[in-house]
Amino acid sequence: MLILGIDPGTATTGWGLLETGIKDVGFMVKGWGLIETHKDGLKENRLDFIYEETLELLKKHSPDVFVIEKIFFATNAKTAIAVGQAQGVLLLAASKSKVLVMEYAPGTIKKMITGSGRANKKEVQQHVRKILGNHIKSKAHKKTHFDNAADALAVALTHAMKEGEVHV
Amino acid sequence: MLILGIDPGTATTGWGLLETGIKDVGFMVKGWGLIETHKDGLKENRLDFIYEETLELLKKHSPDVFVIEKIFFATNAKTAIAVGQAQGVLLLAASKSKVLVMEYAPGTIKKMITGSGRANKKEVQQHVRKILGNHIKSKAHKKTHFDNAADALAVALTHAMKEGEVHV
Repeated sequence: MLILGIDPGTATTGWGLLETGIKDVGFMVKGWGLIETHKDGLKENRLDFIYEETLELLKKHSPDVFVIEKIFFATNAKTAIAVGQAQGVLLLAASKSKVLVMEYAPGTIKKMITGSGRANKKEVQQHVRKILGNHIKSKAHKKTHFDNAADALAVALTHAMKEGEVHV
Repeated sequence: MLILGIDPGTATTGWGLLETGIKDVGFMVKGWGLIETHKDGLKENRLDFIYEETLELLKKHSPDVFVIEKIFFATNAKTAIAVGQAQGVLLLAASKSKVLVMEYAPGTIKKMITGSGRANKKEVQQHVRKILGNHIKSKAHKKTHFDNAADALAVALTHAMKEGEVHV
């Protein structure tokens, strides 16, 4: 199963690609990266860029499932609107690509990855690194530092664990 | 100037089309309507529908400007996320159509339309009806009741007034 995890934002959208059901090793991180937009750009053009990059990712890798964090709360309404706008074009890209969409609440992700629904960002990163560290395909090393895409990989990993494809 | 005003929402997105600079009458409501999605639909498909309907509206009417309410606060974060997702695909449609995007804060819209930044929804509707009532092109009468698209027309009207195209 090929799982694309997404961590949405208008400025930076992280993505991580996880393949499960691989002989001997069980699962592999196939790649990760960031879709970054410039803060000086027009909002509609930034969203357009995120949409097009995501469509390209989906076309290139044809994942079986597109997994996104379900956000209930944000630090403030302005952040919620901005994250919502990014989610909107990401979900549209998923619809256009006819890929299955799954959403997990932040607490569910934290619980699956660290064992605690109240883990902080750093703890999630550490656990993602610990779980996935030995399962990275060499080609997956991109310019982007692993930790920057850890949230996206955490989302993908959550789905893999929920489906019983990865056990830790 | 042809102005498309938009009132975004995942369930219902209202739109209103206002033309200014018309000889003798000054301005005219050219049409209005609602883009409605079914609550049982998948979120990504609902957003896809809003996106396609908006692209079609933009293609059909080629407005000079696409005006949307800038939302800072929402009654709760869940609403903010949902409105943000709808805004995301609406702004993407604007970007794809290369139309100028303008945003106005709710307080600005209320102030322009009613004279008070704290007017309620009903007061805005009444003022929109009063200002635009005699400027409705007969063809503009659609199945959708005028009041349901009043928020979208209020946004379009705000831009027209800001630009000095409509005086009340």
